[in-house]
Amino acid sequence: MKVRTGGGVKDIRAVWFDKGKVMMIDQRELPHKIVTVSFDKYQDIAEAIRNMTTRGAPSIGATAAYGMCLAALSGVDLDKAAKDIKAARPTANDLFFAVDHMLAGLKAGSDPIEAANGYADMIVDKCTKIGEYGSALIKNGMKVMTHCNAGALATVDVGTALAPMRKAWADGKRFFVYASETRPRLQGMQLTAWELGQEGIDHAIIPDGASAYYMEKGVDLIITGADRITANGDFANKIGTFDKAIAAKHFGIPFYVAAPVSTFDFDTKTGKDIVIEERSEKEVTEIYGMKIAPKGSPALNPAFDVTPAKLVRGFITEKGIFAPKDIGKVKQ
Amino acid sequence: MKVRTGGGVKDIRAVWFDKGKVMMIDQRELPHKIVTVSFDKYQDIAEAIRNMTTRGAPSIGATAAYGMCLAALSGVDLDKAAKDIKAARPTANDLFFAVDHMLAGLKAGSDPIEAANGYADMIVDKCTKIGEYGSALIKNGMKVMTHCNAGALATVDVGTALAPMRKAWADGKRFFVYASETRPRLQGMQLTAWELGQEGIDHAIIPDGASAYYMEKGVDLIITGADRITANGDFANKIGTFDKAIAAKHFGIPFYVAAPVSTFDFDTKTGKDIVIEERSEKEVTEIYGMKIAPKGSPALNPAFDVTPAKLVRGFITEKGIFAPKDIGKVKQ
Repeated sequence: MKVRTGGGVKDIRAVWFDKGKVMMIDQRELPHKIVTVSFDKYQDIAEAIRNMTTRGAPSIGATAAYGMCLAALSGVDLDKAAKDIKAARPTANDLFFAVDHMLAGLKAGSDPIEAANGYADMIVDKCTKIGEYGSALIKNGMKVMTHCNAGALATVDVGTALAPMRKAWADGKRFFVYASETRPRLQGMQLTAWELGQEGIDHAIIPDGASAYYMEKGVDLIITGADRITANGDFANKIGTFDKAIAAKHFGIPFYVAAPVSTFDFDTKTGKDIVIEERSEKEVTEIYGMKIAPKGSPALNPAFDVTPAKLVRGFITEKGIFAPKDIGKVKQ
Repeated sequence: MKVRTGGGVKDIRAVWFDKGKVMMIDQRELPHKIVTVSFDKYQDIAEAIRNMTTRGAPSIGATAAYGMCLAALSGVDLDKAAKDIKAARPTANDLFFAVDHMLAGLKAGSDPIEAANGYADMIVDKCTKIGEYGSALIKNGMKVMTHCNAGALATVDVGTALAPMRKAWADGKRFFVYASETRPRLQGMQLTAWELGQEGIDHAIIPDGASAYYMEKGVDLIITGADRITANGDFANKIGTFDKAIAAKHFGIPFYVAAPVSTFDFDTKTGKDIVIEERSEKEVTEIYGMKIAPKGSPALNPAFDVTPAKLVRGFITEKGIFAPKDIGKVKQ
């Protein structure tokens, strides 16, 4: 992804391996500061996943793969490391997939660094293909809406929901993106708008509650990411996605979900089987540690919601675009 | 409204007259501190309106009436006082109405204190009736959702959307209120949740984007206020109301609008004729003066949206509850 620093434009990933350490952009510091942090213990990787230094399902997957790499390099019990890393976040299928993938590879004798780099490259390759397929949906002059951050920060590089926008923009198409701020953690404002700004893509931040207002004025296409897609096409994504999908249906706006095949969980039948992570109410009632809510008023903070398949026009994957009724073809 | 201080529970209004002074809750300090301020000069009342010590159109109207009362008691030129108070907020219709109403009454020989108290009582009486009609909709065990603040702070006492909840709770009904935080200015979090907490009504703050999530889990009733209701039943209210109304329709949840008859504008045919105020992007990109958005990313900040009548189950007024198709009866 492009990162504009004082000295110019650099092209870096959200997480990578360099000189024995796992490096990552500390996404909690964005958009105010671009800080890279480094880790050499798998336990610290698990903590970095838990405390959201890195976030977004595929980036979490790659970070977990690098965590397993560190575990292997330091010679600790791989099964224990796998269990510890998996425990960091409850909802991200990519986390479990990456850990299991690495565990099997390492037990079969793979080189830890090659295996983890290979896992990260595989994600970036998939995102690049998602961008190629999805960019066909974007025409000149369109208004596109997204939610939360399904960008390069979330997927090592390129992004899922943002991949079609990056590709279309690179191809010379000109369009406008509404990035909804995504309370409570403001990933839409602080990460997506930041990425779009770094790439030079026309955009504006809107409050989440202004979605229907702008949809009625004219939005042509909505693309979000997904944290998990179940066998029937229901999908979990950042809280607020469901509200947008309902409004999109109301206005007849095509709603697409961009995600690699690894996000599909064919073992889970429907969205009703997804357990939603409830996060601390402080994410709602405080901003940067400053209390903004009344004393004594509780807040609820579900991290994700589940959007039913019937509200989805298509899933943009590295294998092509699939309507919910064709979801079985995704695993073929 | 109930206000819990260190010493216990007091029942006060947003603005009132006591021992020669106009008293009011300084709403700029909420929800962090409960500060009452007092004024004995009409010029200070004008300043309190200007600097938003008091807010909400009906509360501003009552405050202006008390300002005219102070002017009359101190024997200053009433026409000059009227002009000065009217200049405090340039576009507040209730402000002009209240000042003119008081000016005519005072010139006709009304008692200043009785006239101002009468004006405030008239607002509170309407809200009380809204509460009586609306509370019939609330049953034990219900989950009720609201948006923004249509509470006692804005209407001298009782509120509009909050009036049915206050009345139902006072009648011994027990239910739960979801108060959506209402970005960007957080009136749902900072004023509605505060009022509910003071009344002891069970509630929780939710991010605006968690509305569909909780509606699917089971919301029985949604009540919001309105800033303007047009002749066909379309209505303008705080941004985010439209998203909720669409989601309510999707789930089949009854959506009610609570407002006095004075909010109905029969001279405006439909919501398409309402001009939406675009406010400063800083309300989105900053919190308490602190920048939270990326440098260079613009934000859009429409203050209101317009919800079409077809998404409304009924209007709760001081004359009863009216379905959109019966809206003509409101003015009879």
